Amino acid sequence: MALSDLASTPGLAAGRDAATHGFVFNHTMLRVKDIQRSLDFYSRVLGFTLVEVRHFPEARFSLYFLVLVDDPAQIPDDDQARHRWMKSVPGVLELTHNHGTEDEPGPVYHDGNSDPRGFGHICVSVPDVVAACERFEQLGVPFQKRLRDGRMRELAFIRDPDGYWVEIIQPTPLDC
Amino acid sequence: MALSDLASTPGLAAGRDAATHGFVFNHTMLRVKDIQRSLDFYSRVLGFTLVEVRHFPEARFSLYFLVLVDDPAQIPDDDQARHRWMKSVPGVLELTHNHGTEDEPGPVYHDGNSDPRGFGHICVSVPDVVAACERFEQLGVPFQKRLRDGRMRELAFIRDPDGYWVEIIQPTPLDC
Repeated sequence: MALSDLASTPGLAAGRDAATHGFVFNHTMLRVKDIQRSLDFYSRVLGFTLVEVRHFPEARFSLYFLVLVDDPAQIPDDDQARHRWMKSVPGVLELTHNHGTEDEPGPVYHDGNSDPRGFGHICVSVPDVVAACERFEQLGVPFQKRLRDGRMRELAFIRDPDGYWVEIIQPTPLDC
Repeated sequence: MALSDLASTPGLAAGRDAATHGFVFNHTMLRVKDIQRSLDFYSRVLGFTLVEVRHFPEARFSLYFLVLVDDPAQIPDDDQARHRWMKSVPGVLELTHNHGTEDEPGPVYHDGNSDPRGFGHICVSVPDVVAACERFEQLGVPFQKRLRDGRMRELAFIRDPDGYWVEIIQPTPLDC
């Protein structure tokens, strides 16, 4: 469907309010049980870079902001500049660690895909989904859905340490 | 904390695996009860543009992909080109509509901020958070936290039609 036809989808505003110019879909926040395991997963397995940490010792939580950018030169080294940059770009992942959850037995958080449902997943796009999934297998990453499972053969789902689903896709058609 | 110091945070990988180059944090998926209400909210209130719709009539669900970009010329008009573009950029919002949920009484989905917790919120960064919040008030948008509520005076939370929290921030310090 052409972009102009999509504009007539029921519910959509007729035009864009100029007051929304400059708005950016900045980040998504997930709570995580064990921040060290999550930082390991998002940095080692998926390539995210940690760009800001904020600790709130009285309220016993910490916030970790990560980005997924190829060129580290994009990320300002100066704290203030990096803070402003981090708040102005899309695709930031915020992980909230409530202190002490890492010592609780079993899973602490709900992935949203069983009742009560809501949030479904985040998605990382990769240049080669087959190569990426082979690497995840080698790394021992748990899969929710392998490429060969089900009817949608061009996408996979892996699970992060809390069980959140991470969809893996590639922008171009897959030869399968 | 300087960026180089952040790199020693426990859990983080020592360096970035070259196999993750080209990875992009592409989208976040939320299930919504009434797609028309959600499309109205995300387009009219927040300025999102609908760039792709996929219907799965046999499985009775539809997927809606939205982006928040200032220059519509960025978005390819050609379907295939737009599909590839949409899968290659950060900051995409995917809304899943399970057909018929709009006719169920009361809320259908869980916002993640009461037990069982997990997902917390998405965040939209705006050039002027005070002006943005005044506009949300005028539009009758429900607030989870106004700028003046609590200790964090530089941020607000509004609620989308399903009750999902949308944080509103600005990149620069707020004079308050």
